[in-house]
Amino acid sequence: MRRLVFALVAVEALAGVGADMAPASAQADGEAAPIFGVKMPPGYRDWRLISVAREEGNLNDLRAILGNDVAIRAYREGQLPYPDGTIIARLAWDYVPSEENNKVFGRRQSWVAGPPKNGVQFMVKDSGKYASTGGWGFAQFNDGKPADEAVHNTCFSCHEPAKARDFVFTRYAP
Amino acid sequence: MRRLVFALVAVEALAGVGADMAPASAQADGEAAPIFGVKMPPGYRDWRLISVAREEGNLNDLRAILGNDVAIRAYREGQLPYPDGTIIARLAWDYVPSEENNKVFGRRQSWVAGPPKNGVQFMVKDSGKYASTGGWGFAQFNDGKPADEAVHNTCFSCHEPAKARDFVFTRYAP
Repeated sequence: MRRLVFALVAVEALAGVGADMAPASAQADGEAAPIFGVKMPPGYRDWRLISVAREEGNLNDLRAILGNDVAIRAYREGQLPYPDGTIIARLAWDYVPSEENNKVFGRRQSWVAGPPKNGVQFMVKDSGKYASTGGWGFAQFNDGKPADEAVHNTCFSCHEPAKARDFVFTRYAP
Repeated sequence: MRRLVFALVAVEALAGVGADMAPASAQADGEAAPIFGVKMPPGYRDWRLISVAREEGNLNDLRAILGNDVAIRAYREGQLPYPDGTIIARLAWDYVPSEENNKVFGRRQSWVAGPPKNGVQFMVKDSGKYASTGGWGFAQFNDGKPADEAVHNTCFSCHEPAKARDFVFTRYAP
């Protein structure tokens, strides 16, 4: 699967849309997050969409859950547990009213993604390396920097209720 | 750019993850929508994410806006007007509470994507063909079938307030 990703990048580069389309997040050599040692996966902003969500309360965001090729394939095939190599990314943005849309509709109607918020989170499947946490490594990055150890201590326990779906809450949105 | 897309598909097929990963929506020979003659673009569910949104009122959905390669490149480079070949897709799902997440948090917390809702919409840029509507063709498909002509008569007028951004409301979510 890793070979596939490289092949795709190569084709894009040949067509002249490689370097200039790489988002700022596509850095392979960033700092590893504590406990699980996960680094920010390069190119995750280009991954395909799994689903979207809205969190209320203190989080107060709109979010998108993206998956690498292994993740998308597993989701579409209903494969459980997720195979090693699966990476799921959770992006989130401030939940802001669209004054522009509301004016068009003449009422409060639309909420859109504001600036990035609540960091970017990843779940990385490696059943050997992360055997004690259901086969998953967890990571959160705030402005590209790993969150602290206390944050990472909460990940697995929070995901345990989703054990029947291999600790993954998000369902695929067709 | 069309050549690039074909190249990517070819590489995926060679790696053996072509046919089985193609979503049901990837049909090139569907029925064309009225007025603009737009067909459902094959493989749009695999496109990259532009942003997410939440619509209240009768729409009551969570949505994702995806773009083909031309669209994503234009967004990231801030290119206006969008070049011919740009296609923007709007997917939407029912706005449903996540009972599962709410139980974990012990309060009303999470809203997730339910079943598909409000059809799938597309904006297709062809400055010659669609000169009278700002260079954009519009289409909505409900369960894979084009919506009627009355629906398509409302598209451009609703997008006119966003003329300064080439009639596109959605901003890129980094």
